Amino acid sequence: MAYKLYILNPNSSAATTSAMQRGAANVLEKLDVDVVFDELQDGPPGIETQAHVEAVAFPVLSRFQSVEADAYVIGCFSDPGLALCRSELSRPVFGIAEAAYLEASTLGSKFGVISIVGASIPRHLRQIRILGLQGSLAGDRSLDLGVKGLEDPEIALPRIIEIGKQLRDVDGASVLVLGCASMGVYRPRIEAALGIPVVDPVQAAIVRAHNALILNYPKATQ
Amino acid sequence: MAYKLYILNPNSSAATTSAMQRGAANVLEKLDVDVVFDELQDGPPGIETQAHVEAVAFPVLSRFQSVEADAYVIGCFSDPGLALCRSELSRPVFGIAEAAYLEASTLGSKFGVISIVGASIPRHLRQIRILGLQGSLAGDRSLDLGVKGLEDPEIALPRIIEIGKQLRDVDGASVLVLGCASMGVYRPRIEAALGIPVVDPVQAAIVRAHNALILNYPKATQ
Amino acid sequence: MAYKLYILNPNSSAATTSAMQRGAANVLEKLDVDVVFDELQDGPPGIETQAHVEAVAFPVLSRFQSVEADAYVIGCFSDPGLALCRSELSRPVFGIAEAAYLEASTLGSKFGVISIVGASIPRHLRQIRILGLQGSLAGDRSLDLGVKGLEDPEIALPRIIEIGKQLRDVDGASVLVLGCASMGVYRPRIEAALGIPVVDPVQAAIVRAHNALILNYPKATQ
Amino acid sequence: MAYKLYILNPNSSAATTSAMQRGAANVLEKLDVDVVFDELQDGPPGIETQAHVEAVAFPVLSRFQSVEADAYVIGCFSDPGLALCRSELSRPVFGIAEAAYLEASTLGSKFGVISIVGASIPRHLRQIRILGLQGSLAGDRSLDLGVKGLEDPEIALPRIIEIGKQLRDVDGASVLVLGCASMGVYRPRIEAALGIPVVDPVQAAIVRAHNALILNYPKATQ
Amino acid sequence: MAYKLYILNPNSSAATTSAMQRGAANVLEKLDVDVVFDELQDGPPGIETQAHVEAVAFPVLSRFQSVEADAYVIGCFSDPGLALCRSELSRPVFGIAEAAYLEASTLGSKFGVISIVGASIPRHLRQIRILGLQGSLAGDRSLDLGVKGLEDPEIALPRIIEIGKQLRDVDGASVLVLGCASMGVYRPRIEAALGIPVVDPVQAAIVRAHNALILNYPKATQ
Amino acid sequence: MAYKLYILNPNSSAATTSAMQRGAANVLEKLDVDVVFDELQDGPPGIETQAHVEAVAFPVLSRFQSVEADAYVIGCFSDPGLALCRSELSRPVFGIAEAAYLEASTLGSKFGVISIVGASIPRHLRQIRILGLQGSLAGDRSLDLGVKGLEDPEIALPRIIEIGKQLRDVDGASVLVLGCASMGVYRPRIEAALGIPVVDPVQAAIVRAHNALILNYPKATQ
Repeated sequence: MAYKLYILNPNSSAATTSAMQRGAANVLEKLDVDVVFDELQDGPPGIETQAHVEAVAFPVLSRFQSVEADAYVIGCFSDPGLALCRSELSRPVFGIAEAAYLEASTLGSKFGVISIVGASIPRHLRQIRILGLQGSLAGDRSLDLGVKGLEDPEIALPRIIEIGKQLRDVDGASVLVLGCASMGVYRPRIEAALGIPVVDPVQAAIVRAHNALILNYPKATQ
Repeated sequence: MAYKLYILNPNSSAATTSAMQRGAANVLEKLDVDVVFDELQDGPPGIETQAHVEAVAFPVLSRFQSVEADAYVIGCFSDPGLALCRSELSRPVFGIAEAAYLEASTLGSKFGVISIVGASIPRHLRQIRILGLQGSLAGDRSLDLGVKGLEDPEIALPRIIEIGKQLRDVDGASVLVLGCASMGVYRPRIEAALGIPVVDPVQAAIVRAHNALILNYPKATQ
Repeated sequence: MAYKLYILNPNSSAATTSAMQRGAANVLEKLDVDVVFDELQDGPPGIETQAHVEAVAFPVLSRFQSVEADAYVIGCFSDPGLALCRSELSRPVFGIAEAAYLEASTLGSKFGVISIVGASIPRHLRQIRILGLQGSLAGDRSLDLGVKGLEDPEIALPRIIEIGKQLRDVDGASVLVLGCASMGVYRPRIEAALGIPVVDPVQAAIVRAHNALILNYPKATQ
Repeated sequence: MAYKLYILNPNSSAATTSAMQRGAANVLEKLDVDVVFDELQDGPPGIETQAHVEAVAFPVLSRFQSVEADAYVIGCFSDPGLALCRSELSRPVFGIAEAAYLEASTLGSKFGVISIVGASIPRHLRQIRILGLQGSLAGDRSLDLGVKGLEDPEIALPRIIEIGKQLRDVDGASVLVLGCASMGVYRPRIEAALGIPVVDPVQAAIVRAHNALILNYPKATQ
Repeated sequence: MAYKLYILNPNSSAATTSAMQRGAANVLEKLDVDVVFDELQDGPPGIETQAHVEAVAFPVLSRFQSVEADAYVIGCFSDPGLALCRSELSRPVFGIAEAAYLEASTLGSKFGVISIVGASIPRHLRQIRILGLQGSLAGDRSLDLGVKGLEDPEIALPRIIEIGKQLRDVDGASVLVLGCASMGVYRPRIEAALGIPVVDPVQAAIVRAHNALILNYPKATQ
Repeated sequence: MAYKLYILNPNSSAATTSAMQRGAANVLEKLDVDVVFDELQDGPPGIETQAHVEAVAFPVLSRFQSVEADAYVIGCFSDPGLALCRSELSRPVFGIAEAAYLEASTLGSKFGVISIVGASIPRHLRQIRILGLQGSLAGDRSLDLGVKGLEDPEIALPRIIEIGKQLRDVDGASVLVLGCASMGVYRPRIEAALGIPVVDPVQAAIVRAHNALILNYPKATQ
């Protein structure tokens, strides 16, 4: 019987949820896991500020408490509510940013992060330091596209590749992390353009959750 | 004209607030600053779990938004709401744990933390890593006293000194941090017993807030 | 169609291969993957010295070159031939020690290693430093049992638990790594005795190989 | 009754002393502290070489021993005599460079240092490593202006801003440290031009000394 | 009576051996040591891939076992067989890359490596991490010259100096390491052109071997 | 023609100088170098405090300036005057503590320091941090013998071995550094008793100075 995985986009945009799902499709077809993608219908339209991040923590927890699953994934690159959900739930919970950083650190010497907006960079750095991975961080650069730009692949994709080249050539990244939940569909084209591994955080989190279910470790106390 | 400082105990216990105030008294009498100590009347009776920490973040922010002051101090060793308040308020906000870690790291080669309960140690470590101070952490040990024990100085003080000796002699700490908002009154006796500097986080945060007002730096972007 | 995984025990002992297989059974039954366990019939009876480690590198590579599989796992905690196989083969290759260290570093703040013999500890440390994980290493302690002792669960299991307690209580490990390919069957009993996650390297490598096949990243250049 | 602070410029230039005093004026007016600024009349005209730094150590100590104060500040960015004075005096002693590095490390992720001459950069690095702050150092760049240039604000200020921009934009500094005792008056203009916090070491040391008097920790033994 | 040192070029090229010998000549004339330079006649024409590195490990060991000497040096910047030879021989064995990294780390704050080909950079990084010197690595850049170019000083020398300038000026290296066994003759010209210390690995290893013989430490167990 | 090395004991005790000379004898007989051992006749009877360390800096420099030699060694484990002499002299200058730390860091994973008095431990730590070797420091423990005890081998040697055992078995040191200029004669007995390498700082500095003369690098600028 397949594991059941519940992936929650904590913003209210069904379009974002749909993009996550499309980006993860090629991974999901290879895994024997039942995945439900959902959004937080009462959430903000996007998770952009620290207030957005913290405001959705308890709603994410409540949703997880009301949905039966073997493991839960928080589908936002700020991993809102991750520590809270882990302390309150007995089932395992994963953040897509954490999963992406951990995956990237195993794929090469140094990884670079492609962020949506510069304001999130200090938040990323805090999480990377918590994971002890700052020695593997080559750089974190933001796209600084407006909402319109992000939604238009004709604008977004060339910009992602441009920033990726800077991370690779100036900062020395040998691996890239897409700092967003909805860029997964671009992964093949970015890898083709840059010739280095590109980690999509949703894909990384799905596989990480699947791992955890299989290996079934008890929680560490520290 | 004196600066106005607002220090909020985010639990509902006026006794805790009062202990914080007594512990800070000898510092306050030397500073030209008007301090208001208050508690979050609707908060939990104590901040013990990750859920408590996150639940008070927005109430702390709301309280700060409704109180006029030059700077704000979050009076709980888990620094609940610190990132949120900093991102939302233009006035400076300080956490007592952050202030204590930063102070301790300047007073000797390695510092030890005396925690109330073991469950908070991973949370402390996350914050110490965010600050980049893990190289200066000698150890973190918990008192593991029940509530009764903590409130009884006949029980608490000898236990604090015992744990402090372990941090000093086994772990190599040359400085100690009191991992609680209400132990400040014990500082002189602990320092006398152990012969090394002991940082009370409330005292450290008050002085740090006063500094910030005087030096008046703009916010860093990262 | 299931992925095909080829796991090679580079010593000549079919008993070791069989122990690996039994230790991985509960993981394999949850994965849709065809696994072949095999040994290097011409290998040494055990991989104990640096000469053993290096002597089997090319035989491991040759075997992998002659066996069709989607991914390869080197089933020895010294990861003999790992760099060589990675540079020569286009299919992904995994070492069980590397997989165990990477897994352990994600399960808690600090991990401890239970080694068979003290002479392998410097070799472990070299690999941990290559991975950049030395900041998460709590300690590495050896069982120092003779061959007889290792093969007798009545002797081995209490000793593993004793060393695990030292790593947990003296060195501060919150996660343990079993530094051997054939201890996997003991994992549930060790976790029950110690109350912290215990990583079996063969299990960790199988899951890691499965991940890699699903996520299908290109090789990093550095 | 106000604390008495004695700040000694260890070179013989009263003009430098006066510049320090002007740079600290806006801080001093907010603190209830009596500050005496003085110079070492027999000191070298400037502290430029390692020999200058070491030659003034005992004269600085002698001066402090002959002047009654609650705390002492060594007003030179090479902190000459700091370890010596700390070991010989019971009252607290502060170096302006140490105070600036510690302050800067709390204001953002990475700090940059603006040095007067390149020859002092290795000396700065030694002190930053002693403090354990090398992980927070973005870069150290020198103005390489002659004496004439430094004394002429028309030349010095644009050059400081140019170097600050390189530290911010090329090296990734989110905070700057002015590596000189007499640039404090420029702080507001540099902050306005660059939009990030700028630490004047004299201001930082005054506040740090004031802190120490208020918090009154015993000396750490290590 | 002079110590006897045996330096083995593990490729089959007598021309490389001869270049090593010429590059070490000015060091050897100052040391009372009898040095034999030799090549592995059955080795590959050059050590370029991981397979080359590992293939010569046992041949290097066998050669050392058949030649009487007080200490042995592996004359290739990949240090092939170093761990193996150390574990099997009672006499001390040195790798030229290890010797160069250790020497470089004592000559300045940060060192840069000039590599022959980019593919060797991850291998260098692994060894630098094993030595714990990653904090002192400014950068590693490759010449990317063909074989023809490397053998022609008119092409090689200007390229080495160009790459050295990038390491010095862009990456902040204050010391350079020549990542090749046969560039020693260029050392004076490179130092003259760049004004910073340049470490030739063969020279560094000879002196390090001589040290070890004089100081005669027992082997460390870890 | 042999190099000339001048080794200065900066205290006034000819007995200390003589002990240094005896401890270095077996190294000197293997090197073609003319060594003069001398003491600072006007120095303090011992270098015990920070004031002693700094007071002899210029006398050490003056002595070096008045004595013709190819290289100079400061024969005291506090390396008094090292930075000063390096900046003022064109000939190379070495400190015995620096030489010992650098040597120890190459002999095993972690080194321990055997100090004469606890008060010097923070000074050692400052220098170890300057060298970037704190990651290799297992511990620093002091003998805490009085002067009488130190001079009596019947008392000193067993105590050194006892402390060495603690560093090896409790702190995990695989190499030891003798934190004193006059313990060299004990090195063989300590190594025999403990079975790990023991670095005598005078021996290490002599060999390091000899190296530098042979390799003849220009000074690094940073």
